[in-house]
Amino acid sequence: MRYAIIGVGALGGYFGGKLARNGADVHFLFHNDFDYVVKNGLTVDSINGNFHINGSQLNAYSSPLDMPKCDIILVCLKTTSNSKLKSLLSPILKSDSTVILVQNGLGMEEDLSIELPGTYIGGAMAFICSSKIGPGHISHADYGELTIGNHIGVEQSTLEQICSDLKAAGVASRISDDLNDSRWRKLVWNIPYNGTTVIMNAGTDQLMSKPSTREMITDLMHEVIDAGNATGAHIPDTFAQNMLDNTDKMIPYKPSMKLDYDFGRPLEIEYIYSNPIKIAANHGFDMTKTRVIEQQLRFI
Amino acid sequence: MRYAIIGVGALGGYFGGKLARNGADVHFLFHNDFDYVVKNGLTVDSINGNFHINGSQLNAYSSPLDMPKCDIILVCLKTTSNSKLKSLLSPILKSDSTVILVQNGLGMEEDLSIELPGTYIGGAMAFICSSKIGPGHISHADYGELTIGNHIGVEQSTLEQICSDLKAAGVASRISDDLNDSRWRKLVWNIPYNGTTVIMNAGTDQLMSKPSTREMITDLMHEVIDAGNATGAHIPDTFAQNMLDNTDKMIPYKPSMKLDYDFGRPLEIEYIYSNPIKIAANHGFDMTKTRVIEQQLRFI
Repeated sequence: MRYAIIGVGALGGYFGGKLARNGADVHFLFHNDFDYVVKNGLTVDSINGNFHINGSQLNAYSSPLDMPKCDIILVCLKTTSNSKLKSLLSPILKSDSTVILVQNGLGMEEDLSIELPGTYIGGAMAFICSSKIGPGHISHADYGELTIGNHIGVEQSTLEQICSDLKAAGVASRISDDLNDSRWRKLVWNIPYNGTTVIMNAGTDQLMSKPSTREMITDLMHEVIDAGNATGAHIPDTFAQNMLDNTDKMIPYKPSMKLDYDFGRPLEIEYIYSNPIKIAANHGFDMTKTRVIEQQLRFI
Repeated sequence: MRYAIIGVGALGGYFGGKLARNGADVHFLFHNDFDYVVKNGLTVDSINGNFHINGSQLNAYSSPLDMPKCDIILVCLKTTSNSKLKSLLSPILKSDSTVILVQNGLGMEEDLSIELPGTYIGGAMAFICSSKIGPGHISHADYGELTIGNHIGVEQSTLEQICSDLKAAGVASRISDDLNDSRWRKLVWNIPYNGTTVIMNAGTDQLMSKPSTREMITDLMHEVIDAGNATGAHIPDTFAQNMLDNTDKMIPYKPSMKLDYDFGRPLEIEYIYSNPIKIAANHGFDMTKTRVIEQQLRFI
């Protein structure tokens, strides 16, 4: 299996780095960091053990036109770059390539399937605390599991192959039989925390420690669960309490949207907020509380 | 009619000052500004004409124990001071005194009637852009109408007398036949703008100029209208559009809660947000969007 990693940041650097270090055939598409990594390589500081891949051993590219066609393409870009996906992916697609969108939000696979009809498309949710702390330099602080599912055309055997390769590389991974359900479960965390840490300019620990925002987070979680279930997911109400408990145990953490905001990068409002609101509305469910958060984020 | 003005800030200074300047028998309870006004008097800069009342001509007091008993008591304090109301009012109440709460929010009259049973209590809504810009110094920038209504025991003739005195002093005023309806109408403006200007750290003009926050404001207005009507008010849906149009015409303006926040004063969350939410809930209406704003404000 030949892998492509599109976008080598907190996610692509960690998962791709783990695969490559384990001997998988991995090809990395870099953006700004290309010159740096050719010279200095890719460095991953991980709670599971630091490692480094020399530039000479790294299949690094600055353009997809230079890349070979690949079997498995892991898209690890932020959804704010998804308008470029068609042109980034087209040069490396074969007729039986599988594209996995390792992204947060909802509806990315639908949008890509319209742009690239006939392509096998799946999605993945990363449960990981990692960040890019410098050029070609990833810091992995906690967790690290990947949940992968089919959206359209991806064979079960392909999903199993990816999981098997990841596990061999030391990455916990599992197959989701219901990508919609899994994406909504991820949103039960992302919708309450991502936007509100930006709006309130606070960490998850601060929001959790005050009764009013803890109540707000809890209310939002239940709204997301109800919305997801209206679209066909099967998320139990107790899932909210699990998420709260997990977050209480986490080290103080800035969600990706807070980091994006702090570093002046565009926010993933479209896929994390607007699309879930729209898709829930299409199923007759009005996400009133989430909409307030979305409106405030768009102002910011 | 002997008037008492409890709290001589943006509202008490303007309305009390206008009455006193017109020759009404007005007694002012000052807090921090007492020494200053005894020496320097009360100054009102108003679009309708500046005026000044000398300290020697001003019935100024620093304690209600020094004041005479009064017929009409206009409470012009923020609701964040309402826990002191009973002790402030008791020394100046006669058996037939009327207390009018010139405050924003909902439920203040109910709370006071529990603390001072048998007292005639009404409420008033000020539609005015004014602020205290220094000790004994009020600036009045726009509007200036007072709407007054009975909550419990206030005779219609008393309301007419107050309106008549205010009109004689150059203050537009009118009687509300339904205080609950009038208070909710005021909330249609206060709930959307007061808290969100604090949360988003922006003026009303900025919130109105961006589509997302304009939509949020509009959504909140409709929620307040629906909530008010659930409690027995009769506010037409078109009232929201009127409010939006009026706000578009206003000069860029900081709502009272934004000023309170900027100056480090406590926010009137209880009566402007929590009470309406609670009262609407008692009538079976869930103010989901307003609750998010309340939760964010309590965090701040």
